[in-house]
Amino acid sequence: KKILVIPGDGIGQEVTTWGQKVLTAIAANYHHQFTFEEGIMGHVAIEATGDPLPEETLQKAKNSDAILFGAIGHAKYDNDPTLKVRPEQGLLKIRKELGLYANLRPIKLFDELLEASSIKPEILRGSDILFFRELTGDVYFGEKKRTEDRNTASDLMIYHRYEVERIARKAYEAARSRRKKLCSVDKANVLEASRLWREVMQEVAKEYPDVETEHMFIDNAAMQLIKDPKRFDVVVTGNLFGDILTDEASQIAGSMGMLASASVGDTVGFYEPIHGSAHDIAGKGIANPLASILSAALMLDISFGLKTESQRVIKAVEATLRQGYRTMDIANKHTENEFIMGTDAMG
Amino acid sequence: KKILVIPGDGIGQEVTTWGQKVLTAIAANYHHQFTFEEGIMGHVAIEATGDPLPEETLQKAKNSDAILFGAIGHAKYDNDPTLKVRPEQGLLKIRKELGLYANLRPIKLFDELLEASSIKPEILRGSDILFFRELTGDVYFGEKKRTEDRNTASDLMIYHRYEVERIARKAYEAARSRRKKLCSVDKANVLEASRLWREVMQEVAKEYPDVETEHMFIDNAAMQLIKDPKRFDVVVTGNLFGDILTDEASQIAGSMGMLASASVGDTVGFYEPIHGSAHDIAGKGIANPLASILSAALMLDISFGLKTESQRVIKAVEATLRQGYRTMDIANKHTENEFIMGTDAMG
Ligand SMILES: CC(C)[C@H](C(=O)O)[C@@H](O)C(=O)O
Ligand SMILES: CC(C)[C@H](C(=O)O)[C@@H](O)C(=O)O
Repeated sequence: KKILVIPGDGIGQEVTTWGQKVLTAIAANYHHQFTFEEGIMGHVAIEATGDPLPEETLQKAKNSDAILFGAIGHAKYDNDPTLKVRPEQGLLKIRKELGLYANLRPIKLFDELLEASSIKPEILRGSDILFFRELTGDVYFGEKKRTEDRNTASDLMIYHRYEVERIARKAYEAARSRRKKLCSVDKANVLEASRLWREVMQEVAKEYPDVETEHMFIDNAAMQLIKDPKRFDVVVTGNLFGDILTDEASQIAGSMGMLASASVGDTVGFYEPIHGSAHDIAGKGIANPLASILSAALMLDISFGLKTESQRVIKAVEATLRQGYRTMDIANKHTENEFIMGTDAMG
Repeated sequence: KKILVIPGDGIGQEVTTWGQKVLTAIAANYHHQFTFEEGIMGHVAIEATGDPLPEETLQKAKNSDAILFGAIGHAKYDNDPTLKVRPEQGLLKIRKELGLYANLRPIKLFDELLEASSIKPEILRGSDILFFRELTGDVYFGEKKRTEDRNTASDLMIYHRYEVERIARKAYEAARSRRKKLCSVDKANVLEASRLWREVMQEVAKEYPDVETEHMFIDNAAMQLIKDPKRFDVVVTGNLFGDILTDEASQIAGSMGMLASASVGDTVGFYEPIHGSAHDIAGKGIANPLASILSAALMLDISFGLKTESQRVIKAVEATLRQGYRTMDIANKHTENEFIMGTDAMG
């Protein structure tokens, strides 16, 4: 298996090392052959080549069996919205080029972290949500315009029937093998793109009569997610709403530093933490490596079909937490016998 | 003072009665002259006239000094995205026609409800956020399209410089009279409309050097709001992001049933609960009337400059909560000496 590793920017550099080390350890222990290549993307790629996604990285990606990615973004661009070449363009382009239309974000709380969240333990206990975020459409990829006087700016929020259909099917298939509940999130009371979304969802729902379907407006969903996370099983939504809801949902898992994601579509799978480059803590060796390690676990499961190996990684993460090891983001100020560690020790 | 009351749909009918009763009581006690008219809007208006905002209601609105509104929406339309005439069009049209570009949503927890939230009390205690949501622009009002084959749908997310400038100034002025911190929320790493938003915010920020400005991406903001609500003072954002964040923020105040909003702009002020029509509980007499009562309090303060009277209403709400009266949404299963009441008794 050929794995392309793209550490990217900020803490992506530190945490991705750990995802890769875990893959190496699994290969050794279970006698698999994983070969690794490295690619650049984002701010580091702009610095090196002027291009956030150099052609060479894209070619390597297309020739690989799976990709382990870190994070993207840099304060320089965040502080200057007039810059034309931006790190995030690399990530958006690779998602589009590889046809990664379905982004799976499992939100599951490790028992050991029940106290690490700002949400009450009795609200959280038993939460287990699988998000399907559409990843190659929506206002992310619709035409962007700026008038010549620079006083008006726009982005087209657009969806095509086939885009909604294919993510709907993926989400329903997953719901079938889980608790058979699917919640589709949109803003159909205001947006035409959402009305198409809801129409298509209602049609596809008929093919899955065994799954209970619910439609929810995004504003309500953002509220319900915190009020009663246990009511959700599979959640399917568009690119923008999915971006917002899954970051919010990180509070259900205790920290962003715990959440992995898998982007799949036509061919190669792409695995990444849902956290960003976090330049405020980058280079300090305090970032949580578990999201990258859990991304590696998702890769073993989804791209390679190695369920045992994937479970082995998840069990190792659980064991580490049970022994009391914590990075700062998941440390609980009220509990004793915890050891606050750096990225390396935690990995 | 001429006040137009528009109860609207669902629980809007029940709760708005209470906002109006409180205004009547204030008028009697403080010797003011308030005259009330009533108008229809939303599903009830479609049923009666075919139009979600009849011309008559709009004229009454333009001739009033302030408007007390309830809620809008009905399951019939939510379940059928192909319907062309929809209740929400009434609300969007009146916002646009009256030039209500700034929607203020104060999120403050009443001490008595500290335990009613799904968030831990120690995270919540002391939270006090004032949201400024831009209300007449963004993807809400940009051109909507559906192709003839009905397979592609789009909405234009668009902002003009002057729209960002005027809401920015309102938010900064408010920040000055509070804790002097402003957080502007956008998605400038992906959206052109957000890049314009951020550019303008950065410019206006220069006029308010005494206010500390922070820019945050919407995904991160959705997370931080739950993780550490106390870090926010004034938050300013676009129409869509504001819709999502303020509903989410209702969990900071214990329940949606507690949150009032004021929409202001060129002329008349418009006051409404942030909750929706909640058709699942409508007509049962169990809806929380406090958001409507607190909307009336906002009207007294912002439209009429009656600070003492406004505070009197807020104190009365506090006293009611202190005595243990609760509607279901804010009842705390773990506390004794609480009386769970219906809408009327609570009002
Ligand atoms: C970095 C950014 C472009 C990206 C997104 O918005 O998709 C990130 O927030 C994510 O969720 O993967
Ligand atoms: C009913 C709907 C159109 C409205 C909105 O999205 O603005 C509501 O959710 C609100 O927040 O006032």
